[in-house]
Amino acid sequence: MNDEYQSPLLEAAVTELSRLPGIGRKTALRLALHLLRRDTAESDALGQAIIKMRHEIRYCSVCHNISESEVCGICGSDTRDRSTVCVVESVRDVMSIEATGQYKGLYHVLGGLISPIDGVSPDMLSIGSLVERVGAGGIKEVILALSATMEGDTTCFYLYRKLSPFSDLKVTQLARGMAVGNDLEYTDEITLGRSLMQRTLFSDTLR
Amino acid sequence: MNDEYQSPLLEAAVTELSRLPGIGRKTALRLALHLLRRDTAESDALGQAIIKMRHEIRYCSVCHNISESEVCGICGSDTRDRSTVCVVESVRDVMSIEATGQYKGLYHVLGGLISPIDGVSPDMLSIGSLVERVGAGGIKEVILALSATMEGDTTCFYLYRKLSPFSDLKVTQLARGMAVGNDLEYTDEITLGRSLMQRTLFSDTLR
Repeated sequence: MNDEYQSPLLEAAVTELSRLPGIGRKTALRLALHLLRRDTAESDALGQAIIKMRHEIRYCSVCHNISESEVCGICGSDTRDRSTVCVVESVRDVMSIEATGQYKGLYHVLGGLISPIDGVSPDMLSIGSLVERVGAGGIKEVILALSATMEGDTTCFYLYRKLSPFSDLKVTQLARGMAVGNDLEYTDEITLGRSLMQRTLFSDTLR
Repeated sequence: MNDEYQSPLLEAAVTELSRLPGIGRKTALRLALHLLRRDTAESDALGQAIIKMRHEIRYCSVCHNISESEVCGICGSDTRDRSTVCVVESVRDVMSIEATGQYKGLYHVLGGLISPIDGVSPDMLSIGSLVERVGAGGIKEVILALSATMEGDTTCFYLYRKLSPFSDLKVTQLARGMAVGNDLEYTDEITLGRSLMQRTLFSDTLR
């Protein structure tokens, strides 16, 4: 018997919960004790939802977004603009962009960013399948919607080089600038410089 | 299909995870996507540990601490001082006191504190079984180790009154005072007043 937790069963649950990101052993214990106080049905539902999700969710064979069938709902939709592909790092980013309601094209999920420090090389990302998709024709614009970090920039440059042989293809990236709601005073000089260079017509914001 | 999560399976897992205390839907999504990136074995282990723990953990019939048998390891131990019972609010508190390594007696877990605002009345707590334990004889001291809050104080007074018929019983409570490591400057005046009233011999700290 473990002295600290009084119970190997509790200890096992705490250990598994504390493997989750941002959850330490103290938080894990709080969660486990919470579940012990609740109905059996609640912990059954939680446990089964986790197991079922991991076993049954698949990835779209076209864009690598999560899906419950061979092709995801976005790739399979006939109301989306099939000539535009937005390249993102992760499934999370697809959700963020979908939440804006501003985008009606397709996606391509890379599954990460090139990062020599973390040992992520281009061949570990789904870059080959992006080039194939573009090569198959019909795509007019690829939007590089990656983080404004060193890894994001490195990946953008790499993708840009890989896509440059397609002479008719427009490769764009997300605008850099002041975040909405931010004080100019607290905006860093690189962002401010980019905001100046890429300034837009004020009349465009009124449309 | 839910637009936000792209998948009812993912949505179900997010919903269940976000029922946990302190975990909102954003954190729940982060946890679910983390699990999707990891091995199937990991989410199986997590899900099963939660289900198994909730189904198999029982409560000690003597002290109401968690247990995997009729009587918990502490109540069943022959090295603990059976004449002292420490009354605590929850299983968590048993762990905290065990972690100090300063206590060798038995416990009694109330399962809450008296709180008219939250609708917790004395009969919803395991107070009757505490009085029975004391009535059965052999217990010389009951330590009230409850929070220094209004609910804790109310419960202490109630227990003190319930235990007062046992004339030979010593009823004690945890010392109130400055927390170790705290600045005197930032200690509130009530705590400071109690620390003064209940001052201890400095020579005692040297033993």
